[in-house]
Formats: sequence, structure tokens, C-alpha cells
Amino acid sequence: MNCSFQALGKHAEPVPHFKEKYFSQILDHFNFNNMGNGTFNQRYLITGKYFWDRGVGPIFFYTGNEGDIWEFALNSGFIWETAGLQGALVIFAEHRYYGKSLPFGEKSFRIPEIGLLTVEQALADYAVMITELKKQLDATECPVIVFGGSYGGMLSVYMRLRYPNIVAGALAASAPILSTAGLGDSRQFFRDVTADFENYNPSCRDAVQEAFQQLENLAQHEDYGHIRSAFTLCKTPGSSQDIHQLKGLLRNAFTLMAMLDYPYSTHFMGNMPANPVKVLLQDDNTNNDSDIADSIVYNSTGDVQCYDIYTIYVECADPTGCGLGSDSLAWDYQACTEIEMCFESNNVTDMFPPMPFTEQDRVQYCTRKWGVVPRPGWLKTQFWGDALSTASNIIFSNGDLDPWANGGVRKSISSSLIAVNIPEGAHHLDLRGSNIADPVSVRDARRKEAEIIAKWVKMESKKMF
Amino acid sequence: MNCSFQALGKHAEPVPHFKEKYFSQILDHFNFNNMGNGTFNQRYLITGKYFWDRGVGPIFFYTGNEGDIWEFALNSGFIWETAGLQGALVIFAEHRYYGKSLPFGEKSFRIPEIGLLTVEQALADYAVMITELKKQLDATECPVIVFGGSYGGMLSVYMRLRYPNIVAGALAASAPILSTAGLGDSRQFFRDVTADFENYNPSCRDAVQEAFQQLENLAQHEDYGHIRSAFTLCKTPGSSQDIHQLKGLLRNAFTLMAMLDYPYSTHFMGNMPANPVKVLLQDDNTNNDSDIADSIVYNSTGDVQCYDIYTIYVECADPTGCGLGSDSLAWDYQACTEIEMCFESNNVTDMFPPMPFTEQDRVQYCTRKWGVVPRPGWLKTQFWGDALSTASNIIFSNGDLDPWANGGVRKSISSSLIAVNIPEGAHHLDLRGSNIADPVSVRDARRKEAEIIAKWVKMESKKMF
Repeated sequence: MNCSFQALGKHAEPVPHFKEKYFSQILDHFNFNNMGNGTFNQRYLITGKYFWDRGVGPIFFYTGNEGDIWEFALNSGFIWETAGLQGALVIFAEHRYYGKSLPFGEKSFRIPEIGLLTVEQALADYAVMITELKKQLDATECPVIVFGGSYGGMLSVYMRLRYPNIVAGALAASAPILSTAGLGDSRQFFRDVTADFENYNPSCRDAVQEAFQQLENLAQHEDYGHIRSAFTLCKTPGSSQDIHQLKGLLRNAFTLMAMLDYPYSTHFMGNMPANPVKVLLQDDNTNNDSDIADSIVYNSTGDVQCYDIYTIYVECADPTGCGLGSDSLAWDYQACTEIEMCFESNNVTDMFPPMPFTEQDRVQYCTRKWGVVPRPGWLKTQFWGDALSTASNIIFSNGDLDPWANGGVRKSISSSLIAVNIPEGAHHLDLRGSNIADPVSVRDARRKEAEIIAKWVKMESKKMF
Repeated sequence: MNCSFQALGKHAEPVPHFKEKYFSQILDHFNFNNMGNGTFNQRYLITGKYFWDRGVGPIFFYTGNEGDIWEFALNSGFIWETAGLQGALVIFAEHRYYGKSLPFGEKSFRIPEIGLLTVEQALADYAVMITELKKQLDATECPVIVFGGSYGGMLSVYMRLRYPNIVAGALAASAPILSTAGLGDSRQFFRDVTADFENYNPSCRDAVQEAFQQLENLAQHEDYGHIRSAFTLCKTPGSSQDIHQLKGLLRNAFTLMAMLDYPYSTHFMGNMPANPVKVLLQDDNTNNDSDIADSIVYNSTGDVQCYDIYTIYVECADPTGCGLGSDSLAWDYQACTEIEMCFESNNVTDMFPPMPFTEQDRVQYCTRKWGVVPRPGWLKTQFWGDALSTASNIIFSNGDLDPWANGGVRKSISSSLIAVNIPEGAHHLDLRGSNIADPVSVRDARRKEAEIIAKWVKMESKKMF
């Protein structure tokens, strides 16, 4: 899902002073004879800066997802802006197997050590951590609201479904709870990436298809030198595998631009300009759309001489990208087990080359890579799929620019299962701090979300006092 | 908890023709690298005798608890009587590690094989089994109602909490969801056993206390021969440990009589007469209450020459008794891990000798016996404790004669979380089939339960069609 952000330098959001701490967490919540009550150090960030009604005020708890927790803390200004207004204690908890929360250190990504990486274990971590920290902080009566973006938003939903005894409400920003549970259309994701570009400029789709076709033609004529120079590659491609890799890399570049199509510049594996999709389409210094997409995303500093297609992009069990480094290994494992993302591009409903990723492909890859057999339907069984009518107090926010949006809940289900749609929003833009360049729609969304959260807190406090 | 029944011979309830089948079940739902997708054979019983609206009618699913599934199927006549009236498919599923559903055969009770015995695994078994059987039986649209008694009732509650996407409602009969989660008073259980006897005859309490005092006096004078003959023991006791064992056995005999104080004779490890508490108290052929309690419960056939105190009763992590055989091993393990039953008798709030079982005692015993450290509070975290207000469609039924009752939910929480109390009821009497000797209160309870279930089915069907 590839949701790691970095906001450093001049564009960074103002950040409260978080304390970085570690929580002694149970290694295996679901097997008392595996590891016994063995523990690992789970990282979390905490600030009581706004917690003026100590022991009474709310706790805003970010359910960390697939990355270093600092990256989420530094890019979720909405949470502390709202905490400031509502007097909340703020905690950002890191997901096991990501960042510095590695249960077995460097050995965490081996088999069988990796086996303790599941959604259920992560949720139990958060449930246990909240319960314990509330005791330690003398805050047992404080209502807890969970926040999360993308997979973190899915975890926020799941926390409210599974632990409503602990969590009074959830803001799930850009949480594709349906598409990752195998519900919906496998063509939706890349169709919506395509739509983003098409909506800016209707001729874009044809141009991109044409560029990919040119690449295909060059490959079929084995004109690899031409491909190398066109894409500034470090090595001349020499096989259909190399071409497949290049196509995947290019598709990923477009995907990231669509996801991160924010109205101001942000930082993800380098610099992303404001409105990257628009920038790409307006740029007339290029003859090759793929080329510019590539250089915007992968050549952030402008000092890369050439691209090594196998180091800047790694194919994995998530066709939308796993990112790089050890976090990407963990996410690959999750995509191989519980999180189902058999998304395809087909060049008919989208502008990309046909690149299927069927359940069979997934089984083959995951068995070889991790020694696991995915269980289609498991996430739907565990976390209800679209049968959410008995749940309550969840906001499902989505931005229309975000290709993940239509894999989530777009219509309110009840008066307390509320869809908030943001026409000009990219991937969980609403979780970011206020910015002068924000469209009105995201300001409205944030205001509405804050009001609903305040209402939940008030209701929960009434129950307790 | 010791809830195994056998209804054989002339007192057996009329039983529909169940087919005994096996379901290929995932061994470890929560670790993809442990056992991979390895499976074991989980037993279930099924009858479509009443399922006249095939593909439309409801499914009544019994969430098996700590014993052979046939024992529950043969003693839950209410379920098929109601199935008959409401046209339901009936399934009784056996709990992993009990009966014939042993994941590793005879090796199931070894360390670490026992480690896959958890409440969460059992619930996932039922969720997966229901989902899969519905597909196989072309019944994907059929509303599912879960039923369970005692620990099975706890599982029914948990199924509705955790899997409302799969389960439309739950009848939890005599489910002590609070006391087993460490909530409430550790003295409650044996206080209520005592109250049962006291309510029949106020002088009973003193008589029993006096009898236990006599035993204590004999033991202190090391008059073991006297004890042997008084209790018809096979071996002369020779240590304080033997006396402790004898006291535990006797306390257990009273406990079973209170739990199984049904208005007609039933069969549990032998014959239990109708109204055993009353029988005991009216019996004037004995000078020793303990003696008669003992012989009613343990000497069912009347042909036992003497009692071996270590084979007819086994002390375990459940002070109310674990029963005997391999099922008792599994239950002991559950009492050592998730199910908290640190109940004490103290001879002040109850009529029994002081026999504490503190959390420290539990830790010591469980570490030695199973290599596990219990996690107090875990069940409350996982299954909400008394914070049930967000749940719906659960009946909590309890009989006033049942010492488990006050460890459960006795007052309705909302219009769909309904407490049904049965003044003349013992342990889940309402789940049993109709009997001429039934008190009006249990008939009323069953009628009410059936009406509520029919309403749930109707509501769920409306959602689907």
C-alpha cells in the first residue's frame, strides 16, 4: 500500500513535542505455549501537551500502519490540531514488525519468526497497550478515539468492531476495507488511477497508452538500447522480465502520483511537487509521459544519473507497491496472508499494460516467498466485509482523487457509520494538518469529523461519569 | 466447569436423527507460518429434518463446549423443539481439543501441541465452519442463530460480539461471562452453592459445616481410620494432602448437586435423582450429609465398594471441577490460560472449609502443569467484560438455582440484550427438552426465548431478501 511519508525540511507540518517510548508487549497473544508470556519492545509516541483535563479528557490513539511511526506522526496534523481543541492526550503506536517495533530484531523477517505478524496480533497489541497505558496514566475513565489512514484506517475500523469496550469511535481515513477483503472489482484500483489523470486532461489516457505501446514495440523489436536511453536506465534491459519490471515501476509511479496528489508539495522517498498529476500533464518539456512520471517520483533530488529498475521498485504481493526496506518485507508478508489485493491492470478499463495478479499468482508467489498459503475470504470473515450494520461510531473518509477510495465505504450506512467524501482529496488528505492550499472540501470534512468526534467523546464521558 | 451430561437409557430425551460428520478445519487461524494451512478433523452433528425451507430457513448452531458434542446434542431438546417449530437446520459443532475433535490425536495434550487450544481459535473454527457449510449446503442466505450452555453459552455470546456478520443472534444459557473474566466477587460461587441448600432447609448450612468440622477434627487427631470408614474410602488417608483432596471432592459433590438440581432425574457420570438437593436434605438414612452427597454423585450404580479419592475427583485450575478424562485436561488448560476462575470457599460466606484459590495459586499451578502464565484481564479485554452496551441480539438466560447464574448477566442491558431469569432453574435447564416435571418458569422462559429467536430470524431475513 506504500503509505510511508516523510515531512522534513521547509514543508514539514508543525509538530508537538512527542516523547518516544517503548511498551513491553506480549509476543504471541493467541498461543500461551508459544513464547509463553514473552515480550518485545513496541514503540509509541506520546504527548500530553493538550491533555488539560488529565484523567477526564479524551485519548486520541493512532493505530500505526506499515511504516515507521514517526512518519505517520509527522504527517497527521489534523489529529493534534483537534487534540488541541478538544484537550486530548495523543498517542501514536507503532505496528509490530515495522519501524523499530521488531519482535525479533533483524531476525523478524525470517520464517517462522515472521508468523507473529497478523492483523489480529496488531489489534491485540493496541487493545493491551491502551488498557495498560490508561492504568499507568491514571486515565482509566478517558474515552479513547482511534485514528488511522489507509491500512491504519482499516485497523481503526477493526478496533471499533472488535474492541468497542476499549474504543469509543474511529476515524478511518482512506481505509479500503472492502477491496482488501476481496470485495468489489479487481479492476477498480487501476481504473481509478487512470481516471485521475483523465479527469485532469481527457487526452492523457491515450498519451500514456501510446507511451506504453511504444515501450512494448521497442521491447518486441529487442531495441533495448533505445529503451535504456529513453528511461535513463543504468543497465540495458535484456529480458521480458526486465521489461515487466520496468512496466511495473512505471505503473507504480503513476499510482503514487494519484495517491499523493496533494495541493502542496510533500515528501515521499524524495520530493513530490504540489498537484503532481497536474504538473505531469502540464509539463511540455518531455515527449514521454512515462519519463516525467518516473523522474518526479524516483528522482527526487535531481542528482540521479540513471535508474536501476530493480532497486527503486520491488515487485511484491501488493500490485500497488510495497515500498522499499524492511517495512516493505513486512507489508509483502501481510499481502501474502490476510490482506487481499489481487488488483489487475488490463489496458481496457485502465491506461496501463495488461498486468494481471490473480489469486493463483498470489498463491504461487506467497508459497515460494514466505511459505504461506493465503486464505481468501479470511479478512471478510474476521472483520465483517460489508456486513457492518451492527457497528457504530465510525467515520469512513475518502478523497475522490484517491484510487483507494472506491475500495472503501463511500455511503453512510447509519447515523453513526458516516461516510465523508472529499471531492478534491487524495489519500487521507484529511488527516494532514491545515494548509493554506487546502481545498474547501477538506476543510469542511475536517470540521465535520472534529464535531462528530467531540460528540462521541461527550457520549462516552456521560456513560462513565 | 464440568458440564458434561449423558442422557442415555430410559430418561434420555427424544433425539432427532443426527448425522455425524467431520469438517476439515484450519489448525492455526492466527499464525500462517505455524502449521501453514494444516487442518484437523472437527466433528459436527447435523440434521435437516426440520429444514423445510431449504436455502431460506434459519440455521441453529450449537457452539460446542468442554465435552463430547453428543452429550450436548442429547441434552438440548429445546433447540430441536424450536427448530421443529421454526423450520431450522440444526448443527452441533464440537469444540477443538474435546471429544473426537483432537487436532493432534492423542498427542493433543502435550506441550506445545496444546497451545492451539484457545477461545479465539474455537470461535474462528465456528466462523469458518458456518461460512463454509452455508456454501456447501447452498444456504448462504440463511440467518444463523447460535446456542450454547455454560462455557458454550459464553462462546455463543462471543460469536455474536465478534462475528455479527455471521451470527444474527445468540441464546446464551447459564453463561458466566462476568465471573470467568475476573469480574465480581471470588466468594460468589460457593456462597451461591450454599444458598441453594440453605434455601431448601435453613438448618442445612449448619449441618454441612458441622460435618466438615467433624472431618477436620478427625484429621487433626490423625484418626484416619475413622475417616476412611465414614467416607467408604479404598485407602486410609495419610496426609494433609489427602484430607485436602477429600474436602475438594466433597465440595465438588455439593456443587454438582446444586448445578444439576433438575426437577427430574438426569445422568452425569452416573445417575442424578430428580431434585438432588431436596433428596439429600430429606434423606434421613444418614448421619452424614457429606456421605450422602458423595454417594449420590459418585456412586451412580450403587455397586462401588469404596472410593478412591484421587480417581473420582481431580483437582485442577477450576475450583468448580474439571471432570475426568482427556476433556478435563483440555478444560484445565483453558482455566490456566484465558478462563479465570479464582473462586474461593472460606467457611464464612459459604458452608465449605476455607479453600482459597488465589491468582498466585493459579500462576504456580499453571506454570508447573502446562508451562503457561495466565493473563488476568485478557478475557475482559478480548470479550468486553461488562461493557456490552454496543452489542445486540443476545439472550442471557440464568436459573436462580444455578451457582453460575450470578456470574452472568441478570438484568437486561437494552431491548436486544435480554436477561431471562428462571426462578426454579438449575444450570441451563432451559436448553433441555420439555418435561412434564418442568416448572412454569422454565416453560415461560423457553416460550419467550423462542419468540425472540423467531423475531431475530425474521429481521435478518428481511435484510437479506
